[in-house]
Amino acid sequence: MGKTYQTTVIQAPVDQVWNKIRNFHDMSWASGVVEKCEAVGEHAGDQIGARRVLNGVFHETLVEFSDLENSFKYRIDDGPGPVSKDAVKDYIGAVRLIPVTDENTCLIEWSSRWESPTDDACDFCHNIYLSLFDSLKNSFEA
Amino acid sequence: MGKTYQTTVIQAPVDQVWNKIRNFHDMSWASGVVEKCEAVGEHAGDQIGARRVLNGVFHETLVEFSDLENSFKYRIDDGPGPVSKDAVKDYIGAVRLIPVTDENTCLIEWSSRWESPTDDACDFCHNIYLSLFDSLKNSFEA
Amino acid sequence: MGKTYQTTVIQAPVDQVWNKIRNFHDMSWASGVVEKCEAVGEHAGDQIGARRVLNGVFHETLVEFSDLENSFKYRIDDGPGPVSKDAVKDYIGAVRLIPVTDENTCLIEWSSRWESPTDDACDFCHNIYLSLFDSLKNSFEA
Amino acid sequence: MGKTYQTTVIQAPVDQVWNKIRNFHDMSWASGVVEKCEAVGEHAGDQIGARRVLNGVFHETLVEFSDLENSFKYRIDDGPGPVSKDAVKDYIGAVRLIPVTDENTCLIEWSSRWESPTDDACDFCHNIYLSLFDSLKNSFEA
Repeated sequence: MGKTYQTTVIQAPVDQVWNKIRNFHDMSWASGVVEKCEAVGEHAGDQIGARRVLNGVFHETLVEFSDLENSFKYRIDDGPGPVSKDAVKDYIGAVRLIPVTDENTCLIEWSSRWESPTDDACDFCHNIYLSLFDSLKNSFEA
Repeated sequence: MGKTYQTTVIQAPVDQVWNKIRNFHDMSWASGVVEKCEAVGEHAGDQIGARRVLNGVFHETLVEFSDLENSFKYRIDDGPGPVSKDAVKDYIGAVRLIPVTDENTCLIEWSSRWESPTDDACDFCHNIYLSLFDSLKNSFEA
Repeated sequence: MGKTYQTTVIQAPVDQVWNKIRNFHDMSWASGVVEKCEAVGEHAGDQIGARRVLNGVFHETLVEFSDLENSFKYRIDDGPGPVSKDAVKDYIGAVRLIPVTDENTCLIEWSSRWESPTDDACDFCHNIYLSLFDSLKNSFEA
Repeated sequence: MGKTYQTTVIQAPVDQVWNKIRNFHDMSWASGVVEKCEAVGEHAGDQIGARRVLNGVFHETLVEFSDLENSFKYRIDDGPGPVSKDAVKDYIGAVRLIPVTDENTCLIEWSSRWESPTDDACDFCHNIYLSLFDSLKNSFEA
């Protein structure tokens, strides 16, 4: 019983942003939010079924990926508190880039959807995605 | 044999922009580009099958519409020179709004796709859509 | 907290099926399931915002429509028991036809999605859609 | 300047069909049509960017893949005659499975789209996809 939706404009061309975020096993652009991104298993970072553990607690699997649309989707298999496997099911996160052609920048859309008897996960997840946006923006300003 | 793709950010909330552009029979927001927008037939401006003639030369039909996605698609049945019914077929234009949530503004995406042995229509259409973007922006600044 | 998904193949060409079901104000093809389909307001049956009341209890609004994709989506604003406005929110039903090209028939996909603390509406809605499939099939056999 | 669209119902559950066709490097199900499917490079068969050569002449790259939608898209980089890199550009093939829930079978949709001054590739590609459908059906009847 929940979803989040957030977008922001990143001041960089879509190809640069896509190259930075497309590797499911590399979240080094998210410093300050994701301190540790561990690959689980042998899948490559752009291979369907790739798994990762973020900060030791978010267990995620890559389920959809497109170099055509500059987009990917992942499932949260387990996580802390409000997104634990007992609290939510079928959690799908979706990331998509859309070029802003007149400025040669791009929009990033990060949305998510899940089943749950409560909406406890909404604010929790929304705030994480906002922090990730800040990190991504900062990574292009250094 | 062609397509165009253009996007820009409009400095207004998505609902305001959608309310301004959703009526297929009202392009008064496009002053300087569309001088005349004539409804053909009895269909309403948000009814599938609605027809219009722009500036006396572009004959268009509404084929898809979504208040969920803030989007619509139309077919060009006939037009001047590079988009005449002899020069192109299956011309579909698509307009979609995507909210920019952190700024409470929105992105407008205007794309088009058609079949043709040449790509003569590309620049022609691209420039029209850019002019429409300018008109739309101006309409929110007055 | 719920969704349904059901599909079946109809033994008729996609255009015939689409012509039969595309009018939001005409469910005469659904005899035995929908005894009464009342239009509310002045909108046409293929106009976004069209409203109807089915069997005196399901209040629905058309929110998306495509003659390109042979599809439409509607919102349930209020309904009996498990789909009343107090029990569910953001109920969106979606109908889409996909041609089966080698047989010149078509697949109909009827899915739905909503927010709710319970999943009480799942079986209720699923069974209605199955009955509608039966009615639609019968309507092509008479 | 071209596209193809073809669908058929396969008499097997969607999961079985997806498991059979999802590996981009294994077209053993297409006997009689694809005699040789060579992987190029080190990418896995469900990794974006995976490359293959079919029958020594079709050079293809995986560009989109979804375990959520049971779908993938690939680009034809070069091929024989009507789909050679000089004859067409931006050739994208798309494969998608849709469950037929009441029969526990599935629909396969194989479509393609490309840019070209002629439509020479239409029949050529359409017939290949029909042959692939026959092979796939046969693979479930043995």
